[in-house]
Amino acid sequence: MTDTTSTRPRPRRKKILVVSAHPEPRSLNAALTDFAVGHLRAAGHEVKVSDLYAMKWKAAVDADDIPDHAADQRLDILAAQERATLAGRLSADVTAEQDKVRWSDAVVLQFPMWWFSVPAILKGWIDRVFTNGFAHGPAVPPPYGEDGALGGRRALLSMTIGARESAFSDRGVHGNLTDVLHPLQHGVLWFTGMAPLEPFAVYGTVDLPEERFAAVLREYGRRLDGLFTDEPVPFRALVGGDYGRDMRLLPGVEAPGAGGLGIHVRPRGA
Amino acid sequence: MTDTTSTRPRPRRKKILVVSAHPEPRSLNAALTDFAVGHLRAAGHEVKVSDLYAMKWKAAVDADDIPDHAADQRLDILAAQERATLAGRLSADVTAEQDKVRWSDAVVLQFPMWWFSVPAILKGWIDRVFTNGFAHGPAVPPPYGEDGALGGRRALLSMTIGARESAFSDRGVHGNLTDVLHPLQHGVLWFTGMAPLEPFAVYGTVDLPEERFAAVLREYGRRLDGLFTDEPVPFRALVGGDYGRDMRLLPGVEAPGAGGLGIHVRPRGA
Repeated sequence: MTDTTSTRPRPRRKKILVVSAHPEPRSLNAALTDFAVGHLRAAGHEVKVSDLYAMKWKAAVDADDIPDHAADQRLDILAAQERATLAGRLSADVTAEQDKVRWSDAVVLQFPMWWFSVPAILKGWIDRVFTNGFAHGPAVPPPYGEDGALGGRRALLSMTIGARESAFSDRGVHGNLTDVLHPLQHGVLWFTGMAPLEPFAVYGTVDLPEERFAAVLREYGRRLDGLFTDEPVPFRALVGGDYGRDMRLLPGVEAPGAGGLGIHVRPRGA
Repeated sequence: MTDTTSTRPRPRRKKILVVSAHPEPRSLNAALTDFAVGHLRAAGHEVKVSDLYAMKWKAAVDADDIPDHAADQRLDILAAQERATLAGRLSADVTAEQDKVRWSDAVVLQFPMWWFSVPAILKGWIDRVFTNGFAHGPAVPPPYGEDGALGGRRALLSMTIGARESAFSDRGVHGNLTDVLHPLQHGVLWFTGMAPLEPFAVYGTVDLPEERFAAVLREYGRRLDGLFTDEPVPFRALVGGDYGRDMRLLPGVEAPGAGGLGIHVRPRGA
């Protein structure tokens, strides 16, 4: 007799955008991208990939992003991005990426950590795609957080790090990884309404032994399996939440003794 | 009668590199760059400017940075950057920027804060110019900090921020500015040996009133006057300092109650 109630429910078919940023198609980052695509498709999901180097993605925001911009006019870039977004008049490459983000239920960013952040080409994807009027801005007012412009989507940073894990531990010289990634996890992902998961980091990639690669894939597979079920980082909510109208955390909200960037996260289980 | 003893000593003539990253020559960032150049030259210093948009700076690290790289070879980019650096075989644009940094006594980075960091074009200047073998790396081993590869140089982040200052205050929703800038101040500048000053930030630039502009320039002038005399951020030293061989802060080094990224800064006056 088969107990069908113990069968794991097949997750609903979801749509995932993987944005990948490494110049070498035989790199560890490319391998992780390929693995994610295969693993997610095998689980029944739809996947699109933006391979930024293969696409020769233009990194720098400039007037070419705004086809209607008159060359002799002063370019107020953020305002111009917003006007072009609302008018549906952004450049074709940016519009195509916005369409992929809008289509997606989750966004995975795959990159090598360079200088404690994303490579320039991926920063340029964020700068150019997450325009005012699309990802945030006066036309898309707060609340930031889950009710924001890109709300309802999950997000996962998946990165390779040359250094040892201890250097990014609680007392590590580079700062702990959570704090170092705050501008991305909270600044980019939470701010636009996405629900960021704990990041997936592979350390020591300057010289990764072959036998560790298999373990890395197993672990990454587990994280991808939890893309829609793991608890996101419980960042606090802005409006109707824990912040005042001056954008500051209300007094006494944090746990006693809490300090640093950790005050912007709700204690687990609270 | 003139009391000549109260005359401020004229600072020794120094060399300053200003790296500027805004697409619009009539922007506030461009105005701050022009002001800095004029102010520093009037004080007797030599100044060079890298206006990244005007230079059409290539943001993305790729095989073109490594002219000797064979197209059919797997590109291990960080190792390839190091080999090309040590052999003097980096691309001409990267070499020119390294020469400017080497020439300088101080580096000023002028940029609009986009997505809680530098614009992609400036991230690409960091990614491409600060190679292994030039700014750090096996050929330039630790100690990081003042004895590092670019030691003896001061560094100043000068940025415009659209949001209000309260949003970047100690309890501000985006995280306090010091923590948000840690990947740049500590990760990029301190790590390479430079001595970063407290950043200079102009807030509320989405709609900056004309009368505030004059006050901004006065304050920026004061900060530039202190470029070689203000106390840098007292980040801790790695080797022979407060960290163990595992790259973690030694137990009990920080002040009681200290937490977050602040543990990597020596208490002032200590």
